[in-house]
Amino acid sequence: MVVVGGGFAGLAAARALAPAGDTVEVTVVDRRNHHLFQPLLYQVAMAGLSPADISMPIRAVLERQRNAAVRLGEARDIDLDARVLHTDTGALPYDYLVLACGATHSYFGHDAWEPFAPGLKTLEQATEIRRRVLTAFELAELEGDRERRRELLTFVVVGGGPTGVELAGALGELSRHTLSRDFRRIDPSGTRVILIEGGPRVLPSFDPELSHSAARALERLGVTIWTETRVTHIDEHGVRAGDETVRAATVLWAAGVRASPLGRALGVPLDGAGRVVVEPDLSIAGHPEVFVLGDQAHALHEGAPLPGLAPVAMQQGRAAARNILADLRGVAREPFAYFDKGSMATIGRARAVAQSHRLKLDGLIAWLAWCFVHILYLVGFRNRLLVFIQWIWSYLRYRRGARLITQHDWRLAEPTITARAGASEADAKPAQVQP
Amino acid sequence: MVVVGGGFAGLAAARALAPAGDTVEVTVVDRRNHHLFQPLLYQVAMAGLSPADISMPIRAVLERQRNAAVRLGEARDIDLDARVLHTDTGALPYDYLVLACGATHSYFGHDAWEPFAPGLKTLEQATEIRRRVLTAFELAELEGDRERRRELLTFVVVGGGPTGVELAGALGELSRHTLSRDFRRIDPSGTRVILIEGGPRVLPSFDPELSHSAARALERLGVTIWTETRVTHIDEHGVRAGDETVRAATVLWAAGVRASPLGRALGVPLDGAGRVVVEPDLSIAGHPEVFVLGDQAHALHEGAPLPGLAPVAMQQGRAAARNILADLRGVAREPFAYFDKGSMATIGRARAVAQSHRLKLDGLIAWLAWCFVHILYLVGFRNRLLVFIQWIWSYLRYRRGARLITQHDWRLAEPTITARAGASEADAKPAQVQP
Repeated sequence: MVVVGGGFAGLAAARALAPAGDTVEVTVVDRRNHHLFQPLLYQVAMAGLSPADISMPIRAVLERQRNAAVRLGEARDIDLDARVLHTDTGALPYDYLVLACGATHSYFGHDAWEPFAPGLKTLEQATEIRRRVLTAFELAELEGDRERRRELLTFVVVGGGPTGVELAGALGELSRHTLSRDFRRIDPSGTRVILIEGGPRVLPSFDPELSHSAARALERLGVTIWTETRVTHIDEHGVRAGDETVRAATVLWAAGVRASPLGRALGVPLDGAGRVVVEPDLSIAGHPEVFVLGDQAHALHEGAPLPGLAPVAMQQGRAAARNILADLRGVAREPFAYFDKGSMATIGRARAVAQSHRLKLDGLIAWLAWCFVHILYLVGFRNRLLVFIQWIWSYLRYRRGARLITQHDWRLAEPTITARAGASEADAKPAQVQP
Repeated sequence: MVVVGGGFAGLAAARALAPAGDTVEVTVVDRRNHHLFQPLLYQVAMAGLSPADISMPIRAVLERQRNAAVRLGEARDIDLDARVLHTDTGALPYDYLVLACGATHSYFGHDAWEPFAPGLKTLEQATEIRRRVLTAFELAELEGDRERRRELLTFVVVGGGPTGVELAGALGELSRHTLSRDFRRIDPSGTRVILIEGGPRVLPSFDPELSHSAARALERLGVTIWTETRVTHIDEHGVRAGDETVRAATVLWAAGVRASPLGRALGVPLDGAGRVVVEPDLSIAGHPEVFVLGDQAHALHEGAPLPGLAPVAMQQGRAAARNILADLRGVAREPFAYFDKGSMATIGRARAVAQSHRLKLDGLIAWLAWCFVHILYLVGFRNRLLVFIQWIWSYLRYRRGARLITQHDWRLAEPTITARAGASEADAKPAQVQP
């Protein structure tokens, strides 16, 4: 049995097959060697945590599972009839195939915007965003021209979902608290952070009351929110939104997502975001041996497609594994039933919103719940401890420890991320780095 | 007053000028935004620590020093007569200039070797080495051909000084302990680690007894030591050393160093490694207002030039600051006197050697001393705590937490680091990354 993708869905499926022992043989294929805890990725982008704190080698996650093997490789194509997965490191025959390749950003047909407005799906993108943000402050400190300094200190976040809110809140905090003592010539609180949302409110998937509370918390951090505003153009000078042009050195993209292109190889319907429409048991029509999970899957829950969240992915991974084990035992499969534990988003220091069924929380209590849940789900004891310590330290000292500009030349002159038409896990990665 | 370089020497000089208060104005210029604790850089390369654990923003180091400012910029040239430092972010007039630009690797005229045998001076090089080493194991796991697998699992370290010994020991440990549970198909203890040294023994700057002890400890970790052996060629297939050709996918360079090329702008004699020959007070002949420190300086101690060590750099930084303050008070300068506290090198888990005057230590006690000294000198409470916790965890669990392959494509096919004829801090950095 082959699992493609070492994210939440793929690893949950692989781990749920552990009790089957030698009766199954699981191979997890990923083009990365590590599992990434994406819910905390924005903290890497905002210089709060290090890449290694939120990731773990897939081999280490599965090291005690004797019926699982890990293989580095990028999935290229699927031969459904022959039941063979083709990767760039060889062909893998399967009896069951579990696809959990995730999603990448979608620029709604404007892929030319990507170099100027990177998304946040991979560690490379996170360190690239960190580099851009910290470099903008450094260059503003050197800049004599007032207009250009204003441009360097203007940050635009496109998309008012949880990621956009987290990024905007962290940028507000970074400029007001963390960096305020670091710079002598500029006043980092002169920073402008603009959060642009197409719909009528931020956090549209949350209760309107919590959206309102989040918006007010963002505004207290100095974030300007533009709702009902569509971005019509992005280039190296900034953003055009509605009738307005905002000159900004840093633009971050947290708007649309698009599923891995590998789904196209399946010959079944895809939804508008490229997600594979799956049957109630999470397999695809005509091929009960092929499952599609997580961000790559379009699965219905109470009539609406499920969102791309870690709990959905993990529950689907376990459900797919249960259905495979049901086949092996000769009993009937069960349709996937999502148990909605609720959702949460953090805005900044001691500010978050959370909802679970009828319960709605905001402020400090929601933030503590957010911290607790994220530490709890982080894989690996070492990572948990390190993240916990860094959070305590940041909370007490208003600091961020990972303020590193690495890898690239620090000049902002040229965009350094370009789109990559990849196969497999399909996260956009820096394809070309200019010296 | 302008300080070029935020390493040990530059920061020590800047900090030692704090008591002078408003009578001096210090500007620290660096093309990086962070100070790097180089003695632990090999642990980043060997997946034990994260880049942010051993680095700290220069702004944060100096945040409370009111007479110091930090400026991102790469030094390009010096106009000694006009007393102006030219950087790519503008010209800086100075009354005193402190140059502490450090050193980079020297391939003894064979710069073509660099892509195949990266050195270890920057965070980018450390994460690149980490990527190469971890990728070699991943590809070996996939490889069917026995010869090619052997090549992938052969690691050559060129240079038997402290860095070479630390890298070789960590590679031995990584393959025997850390990764042994991670791989199913290969046996990581089949790894070959070869340490090549041109002289008659490893750690030539140490007492022969300690060299012997270090060599035995390395051999217990599975490292093969070739002394009196000169490398005559390096390419993508491996190393030619003496008459022998070793096919190896990973070659690491820890042999020669060369000082920053900025020294050439001074018009005073340089030594064979490009270091600026300084006067006893650490200034240069004919220009008492220009000091050269640390790895960039050729300063004599008991008739021999001082080695490129952190204690030398820190003591020189403080001495230069004292001499500047002496000028301001109108008293005579003092010649620099190095106080040799001793030196140490670590070989692996619970193994190190240390010497201080007549005291010689090896084994566990030397290792504990090494840990203590390195934690003590690491800048920043947060970094100290995080490194300490990760060491304890690694010690108890034989693990390395930062086993991440990032940034580059994971294929080993093409070399990804090329030489860069930089000015200023002169650390070789990845100039071009191929997708």
